Amino acid sequence: MNSESNKSLYNTFEQDTFKILIATDIHLGYLEKDAIRGNDTFVTFDEIMKQAVQNEVDFVLLGGDLFHDNKPSRKTMHCCMEVMRKYCMGDRPIVFEILSDQAVNFSHSKFPWVNYLDSNLNISIPVFSVHGNHDDPTGADGLCAIDLLSCAGLINHFGRSRSVEKLEISPVLLKKGNTRIALYGIGSIPDERLYRMFINNQVTMLRPREDEDGWFNLFVIHQNRSKHGATNYIPEQFLDDFLDLVVWGHEHECKIAPVRNEQQLFYVTQPGSSVITSLSPGEAVKKHIGLLRVKGKKMNLQKIPLQTVRQFFIQDVTLSEHPDLFSPEQPNVMLKVMAFCQEKVEEMLEEAERQRLGNSLTPEKPLIRLRVDYSGGFEAFNTMRFSQKFVDQVANPKEILHFIRHREAKDNIKDMDFEAILSRPTSEVLQLRVEDLVKEYFQKAEKNVQLSLLTEQGMGKAVQEFVDKEEKDAIEELIKYQLEKTQRFLRERRVEATEEKIDEEVKGRAFKEDLVRNLN
Amino acid sequence: MNSESNKSLYNTFEQDTFKILIATDIHLGYLEKDAIRGNDTFVTFDEIMKQAVQNEVDFVLLGGDLFHDNKPSRKTMHCCMEVMRKYCMGDRPIVFEILSDQAVNFSHSKFPWVNYLDSNLNISIPVFSVHGNHDDPTGADGLCAIDLLSCAGLINHFGRSRSVEKLEISPVLLKKGNTRIALYGIGSIPDERLYRMFINNQVTMLRPREDEDGWFNLFVIHQNRSKHGATNYIPEQFLDDFLDLVVWGHEHECKIAPVRNEQQLFYVTQPGSSVITSLSPGEAVKKHIGLLRVKGKKMNLQKIPLQTVRQFFIQDVTLSEHPDLFSPEQPNVMLKVMAFCQEKVEEMLEEAERQRLGNSLTPEKPLIRLRVDYSGGFEAFNTMRFSQKFVDQVANPKEILHFIRHREAKDNIKDMDFEAILSRPTSEVLQLRVEDLVKEYFQKAEKNVQLSLLTEQGMGKAVQEFVDKEEKDAIEELIKYQLEKTQRFLRERRVEATEEKIDEEVKGRAFKEDLVRNLN
Repeated sequence: MNSESNKSLYNTFEQDTFKILIATDIHLGYLEKDAIRGNDTFVTFDEIMKQAVQNEVDFVLLGGDLFHDNKPSRKTMHCCMEVMRKYCMGDRPIVFEILSDQAVNFSHSKFPWVNYLDSNLNISIPVFSVHGNHDDPTGADGLCAIDLLSCAGLINHFGRSRSVEKLEISPVLLKKGNTRIALYGIGSIPDERLYRMFINNQVTMLRPREDEDGWFNLFVIHQNRSKHGATNYIPEQFLDDFLDLVVWGHEHECKIAPVRNEQQLFYVTQPGSSVITSLSPGEAVKKHIGLLRVKGKKMNLQKIPLQTVRQFFIQDVTLSEHPDLFSPEQPNVMLKVMAFCQEKVEEMLEEAERQRLGNSLTPEKPLIRLRVDYSGGFEAFNTMRFSQKFVDQVANPKEILHFIRHREAKDNIKDMDFEAILSRPTSEVLQLRVEDLVKEYFQKAEKNVQLSLLTEQGMGKAVQEFVDKEEKDAIEELIKYQLEKTQRFLRERRVEATEEKIDEEVKGRAFKEDLVRNLN
Repeated sequence: MNSESNKSLYNTFEQDTFKILIATDIHLGYLEKDAIRGNDTFVTFDEIMKQAVQNEVDFVLLGGDLFHDNKPSRKTMHCCMEVMRKYCMGDRPIVFEILSDQAVNFSHSKFPWVNYLDSNLNISIPVFSVHGNHDDPTGADGLCAIDLLSCAGLINHFGRSRSVEKLEISPVLLKKGNTRIALYGIGSIPDERLYRMFINNQVTMLRPREDEDGWFNLFVIHQNRSKHGATNYIPEQFLDDFLDLVVWGHEHECKIAPVRNEQQLFYVTQPGSSVITSLSPGEAVKKHIGLLRVKGKKMNLQKIPLQTVRQFFIQDVTLSEHPDLFSPEQPNVMLKVMAFCQEKVEEMLEEAERQRLGNSLTPEKPLIRLRVDYSGGFEAFNTMRFSQKFVDQVANPKEILHFIRHREAKDNIKDMDFEAILSRPTSEVLQLRVEDLVKEYFQKAEKNVQLSLLTEQGMGKAVQEFVDKEEKDAIEELIKYQLEKTQRFLRERRVEATEEKIDEEVKGRAFKEDLVRNLN
């Protein structure tokens, strides 16, 4: 009834305009056990979906990492489903069509069609998402956390590929009035692998046959955008230049205003995470989601500031820059430095309170970080006592202060790397450690204990899955896979079954190459 | 369209008759990693739900343990949702009403109403379930695996209570034509605790005010029915005599034909599990689900044999009963015994094949167990070589033979207990072991290392949850709970804050009693 009158209004003004809510890296369940911050991700997800309803968007587009953990806790999964059922179901009519073959777009799903066209589900706001690196498919059945939501009819998981050598992306083709969108996506893939696929021309974005240039081409990707080593990111130049807008997930800093890539002539929007997962400067940038309007080939992206995100203030001080206040030789210099740091933290707290004024949705206790450069003969002090003063005012009392020392000599470079690692989310630290550990182990191991069938690379990956994604069967599966592969290889070569012969064969070049090809 | 003509037919014949599919202990995910049996539970769940559709039941009633693991794997959860979405959603109209206050019946749910009345879900077959001991609520948020299904709108989880001292059961009141059903349920509770509640008159089944005697009173319970120790089961006599039919879950033997309790004058149906989780005689009874018809106060329960359940044959042989075939003194007696056992297994395999003939749904490889009593001087032989012969014919080649020895003296009784334990599902064995371990530890511990605040009972329970339900926070939560409790107690008593004083107080009787009351 109401929807009818709304509809006519809607038709008059917006019949050709797609309204799309864009968000990414919501990391549901991040720090869920924390007494202060435990509910932050759930509250913000609620805010995001509420915005989708209030803005009457046609659909929500997520850029991956909806979940923080590969195996989200029951509570996290429950909270997520609750919010989605609350906001994504209802009687509001959906006025855009799907023109592509849904069985292709959602081929990995048991219900390979978009949820709002399922006559058993009354969906008012469809959500489309690729998976991120935190919630990617694992295990023998290749399922990921958002596949559970997809099976429950709450999300449309797209951008999924089974091949590890080749990507052929069939866009989801959407039509509203006279506007047509080709929606492309690639769920998270290890950066090196995707980099290699691009380099080898193994990434193809299929284009609609009909009126190729009449589409607005929207692409969602969840990869490193900033360079983390030679091949450990995806350069924008790799992406097809027929694209109009790229939504870049994974990077947590909010750079949501579309930036034109002058070489490729497309725009890139990087919404950034909706929760602060590391106390680094990028996360201190005000968090937003985007309201994207697309009409024909024109677009407009409206920034919507998030109200429920915990405030985060970060400041750097260099002790040696204040010779008027203290010098390393002074008696009681440490007390003076402490008082100075305290003052800086109080300044940030005041600023936080000022900015929070009148906004009842923002959590009371902000995140505060003071990075103290104590090079030049100063000493770091005990942060425990310092933290005590702020325990009731700050959400991260134990991590307020961060002492750093300037690189004074080249051999300190290792310290700095470690700093960089520590400022990442814990899971990534763990990941790095496990990788290093395995690598180190195999490098140090004597020749005779080295694995000849299980490659270092394969084993490293399996151990990493085991630790990082709680994938209990990763190691077992690798060994089974390798064993079967070896047996098949030997059968094919009709190797005589003597121990020496077999040993010789599997140490040969052909087998090794075959192995590496299959592991990547 | 079609449903309209169906409906009129339906109204003519069955307008007053409830048709209810009854099943229990489906144990989804049991042995999911097993190469042969891994899919058994999923296949049978599919069969059960298909039966519900084919028999056009009004609803499905489950007696608990839908899941085998408290934290089902992603694959298991995905399979379950897939089957439910496939069979429980659709356009078939539901023709019974709910008369009770759903907000009371489903008060623990975020969507406290029955799923088929949710205008956003097109439910054709509602499923009602209590939770079992395998899938019971755990953790600080008190969620269980079926709460995820409930949040997704796929199940109606009832019979849930928050109190551990008192149960007040509000029935779900259902009405179809002139037939009214009061549906009561108790989700699994540790038997001792429920036993005590019954003994202390703390279990109340509320009855509808209007026309108290006009209802068919149906009760679902998931507890030990057979006596496992003095208070470790629920005697039928404890249950209210106004009940008409009790559906008893948890017990795996199929005794689905309703048996009248002559004292209480109600009937009990024990559907039994739909999967064989232990190689004991009870599980060899043919598996069924039930089609219950209720009209007024009359009922009829039709047995439906399950086709997809793996066959299970068990046979006992006593070597000393065959003096004509072999005696312990003979040379080569072991080979003769082996041949004898082989013959018995082959007999069972032939019988299995004969019975399976023409039934393409039954899995090819049966479960086979031969229990060999070798008392009287015989010796057990290596089962490995024996198993090899049947590796392609039997689903459990490694566990075909089970050597037992007759209790010849009293001191052998321990062996027998161990046998009993081993025939239980592995998780229960683990449970027993953990419990024993903790008990033993505290009994052996010197007085000065014994815990004074954390009771043996509380700690035992926490460790058990930790191991058995993968509840990682169980121990932490217990300690937090106990600490807060102790602090509150001390504050209330205004104990002076000296160490000795505090020690004295918490060792006092009042506190200990308070503690025990709250732990149970």
